[in-house]
Amino acid sequence: MSEPLTLGVAGLGTVGMGLIQLLEAHAERLEKTLGRPIRVTGVSARSRGKARDALIGDAQWFDDPVALAQDPSNAVFVELIGGEEGPAKDAVEAALKAGKHVVTANKALLARHGTALARLAEAHGVALNFEAAVAGAIPVIKTLRETLVANGVRRVYGILNGTCNYILSEMTDEKRDFSEALREAQEKGYAEADPSFDIGGFDAAHKLALLTCLAFGTTVACDEIHVEGIETITRADIEAAAELGYCIKLLGVAVQSADGIEARVTPVLVNEESPLAEVSGVTNCVGIDADFVGNLLLVGPGAGGKPTASAVASDIVDIARGIVMPPFIRPTDRLAPIAPMNLTSHQGNYYIRLSVYDRPGAMAAITRRMSDENVSLESIVQRRPGAVHPGQPDEPPPGAAEAAVTVIILTHDTTEAAIRAVLQAIEKDGKVAEPPQMIRIEEL
Amino acid sequence: MSEPLTLGVAGLGTVGMGLIQLLEAHAERLEKTLGRPIRVTGVSARSRGKARDALIGDAQWFDDPVALAQDPSNAVFVELIGGEEGPAKDAVEAALKAGKHVVTANKALLARHGTALARLAEAHGVALNFEAAVAGAIPVIKTLRETLVANGVRRVYGILNGTCNYILSEMTDEKRDFSEALREAQEKGYAEADPSFDIGGFDAAHKLALLTCLAFGTTVACDEIHVEGIETITRADIEAAAELGYCIKLLGVAVQSADGIEARVTPVLVNEESPLAEVSGVTNCVGIDADFVGNLLLVGPGAGGKPTASAVASDIVDIARGIVMPPFIRPTDRLAPIAPMNLTSHQGNYYIRLSVYDRPGAMAAITRRMSDENVSLESIVQRRPGAVHPGQPDEPPPGAAEAAVTVIILTHDTTEAAIRAVLQAIEKDGKVAEPPQMIRIEEL
Repeated sequence: MSEPLTLGVAGLGTVGMGLIQLLEAHAERLEKTLGRPIRVTGVSARSRGKARDALIGDAQWFDDPVALAQDPSNAVFVELIGGEEGPAKDAVEAALKAGKHVVTANKALLARHGTALARLAEAHGVALNFEAAVAGAIPVIKTLRETLVANGVRRVYGILNGTCNYILSEMTDEKRDFSEALREAQEKGYAEADPSFDIGGFDAAHKLALLTCLAFGTTVACDEIHVEGIETITRADIEAAAELGYCIKLLGVAVQSADGIEARVTPVLVNEESPLAEVSGVTNCVGIDADFVGNLLLVGPGAGGKPTASAVASDIVDIARGIVMPPFIRPTDRLAPIAPMNLTSHQGNYYIRLSVYDRPGAMAAITRRMSDENVSLESIVQRRPGAVHPGQPDEPPPGAAEAAVTVIILTHDTTEAAIRAVLQAIEKDGKVAEPPQMIRIEEL
Repeated sequence: MSEPLTLGVAGLGTVGMGLIQLLEAHAERLEKTLGRPIRVTGVSARSRGKARDALIGDAQWFDDPVALAQDPSNAVFVELIGGEEGPAKDAVEAALKAGKHVVTANKALLARHGTALARLAEAHGVALNFEAAVAGAIPVIKTLRETLVANGVRRVYGILNGTCNYILSEMTDEKRDFSEALREAQEKGYAEADPSFDIGGFDAAHKLALLTCLAFGTTVACDEIHVEGIETITRADIEAAAELGYCIKLLGVAVQSADGIEARVTPVLVNEESPLAEVSGVTNCVGIDADFVGNLLLVGPGAGGKPTASAVASDIVDIARGIVMPPFIRPTDRLAPIAPMNLTSHQGNYYIRLSVYDRPGAMAAITRRMSDENVSLESIVQRRPGAVHPGQPDEPPPGAAEAAVTVIILTHDTTEAAIRAVLQAIEKDGKVAEPPQMIRIEEL
């Protein structure tokens, strides 16, 4: 039996404790499989009291994660601290510089500093593994790094944020308003007290940055991703989409187009016949469309202590087996920079919801604006709100808000530039009571 | 730049030609990624005429795959001949004995001789990779071998045969009879002229044998799998299932139970809300339920030249990267034999369709038989066939077949032993016009 593989684990939250549980529960299986045991020899966390002593056993305690990362008693440094700067970054850099393999679940760190850290790992001939950083337990990093190396990826996409997917699922299935669904997510621990990082789409953008890099051989460029959150999605949108045979998902999409790589995190309409429509609650999924493999879809838990710990453990197992490869598939000096891309060249179908003043000629003005930009309609539905009764005069009584009707439009294939021009013109015409809602339709 | 990795490719059907196309299309990408080119230096196929010379280039031709397998000009032998005995087996054995890595898509060969071949590979310290043997392009072998090593698998299941899934999808979506759907599958090239191997469930059983072994650390034991095909599924079953909120799929399932490992390939009823219900046509899927990871579902093309070639290429890439591990995760001497298991201890819910003679007391006799075995009913629906008019006498005219009505029963949780006893007793009572139909319900 060979020497044990020794780990230093920094960060003992739910994932860290889940990992320690996993290594204990499956110690025998791992030793049988790998021919060597895996042992946690050092730990570090924010406060010692929180580190449940019974589970940690005789691992050495470090107050400073950087000291743990540099300590020669462990061969692999496992970073579960989180955060794109500060102790997580310092400790990961220290470990790589000390010639240690690193396993991390830290998407923020990698989305911001991934290329530089990968360069450091390569310079020291060590692994920088991050399966847990994207879509939790779903083995998408391994699939892109290993399974699909001999494919040309056309598109990678996914439901990458469980908080948003939970909120949208609740709005759809339980007919809740956004704020109700958000409050419920917070109560269940699926959303933070300050939820803006999740619901604004930024967490999904971090993950998409890593997927984009792996799929298209580019450097990590988080800031080149177009990000829109789900805060503007209303129950009116959810219901109108459902009537048209769609559901609304926050989707990260990176696609190779003639103009370059288009990477975006936005709410989209997805056909309800698509397998993605069935991915509800905090479940994540990642789809890959590539030239030889065709369409792959991977579905699984996107978060949670045990599933995330499982992904961390799979990275450790690879190291135990001696598998070391460039973190982003190719050596960093062969990664291409990602060119900034303006989403105005995006092509597709669009969903538009307008709140139109109930005046003669309003619809004519709107449809004329669309035809001016060569945007053709697939369908247009006008709905009279409940408050407006038949026979009511066109002009509301003085002082009352003017009556408005909801108009739902689906367009045929067009460009984002055209849609934006149409919506700007419609707003300028003064025919709408509130800013138009526009949601892209994703063909899957 | 390092030395090229050299391949000998035996078998130049759609997969073999797909592989050669892939290696040409992505030569530059592979060389950039791996730091070395991959080159086909020798080929072999049934007849030279079929091997399109232009694509094969300057690779050496071998009439005998065994000679190709032994030839020192290639380091990796790629077996795409097929068949569980004969030239495929001879050539794979020869390659392993010559100390060469082997990549194969041959599920029949591995299901029958997998443990022995794995032992041979281990003895020579070489890889025996077979990602393409199960579920085509879906990276399930890698997921079980690498991602889930630190998990206790509870259940692995999948839609593993595209022919059956196509036929069942057509019967469901297009309301075709079994024979029509089969003929259509044959016309489209999804089914063989003699379809019995696919529709009898044997192809899926080969694949399940490999999944079972990887999931539970057992030796490969194809004959311990309980196999039922889809030949007995009628449109009446499909329609009755749909009315109850289910669809019918041919599913391979291996599950750890108190009595051992239960492995079966059978048609099952799957809730139409399950993501598996959306897997239609020739698409495959594999689900894994494990203690830390939770539920993973992988969906993708289960066959076809390009997707299968992609899986073969991913195995070759692993070898190019120097990754060699025991074919069935642990060394063969640590694999446990799989204990034969009688399905009579299976527990679950059942769907039963009876064709009951339209006589007084028939239903009472049937329900009494069920209560005798403690089988409780979730629902029971009797349907009067179109030909039977109200007011018709109970006894049909002499010479005519006696009138029968269709009875659909869903049971609560019970054992297979009880269900079999019930159905035997009902048949013996002479109350049914044809043998009962029984289909298990799989909770997913």
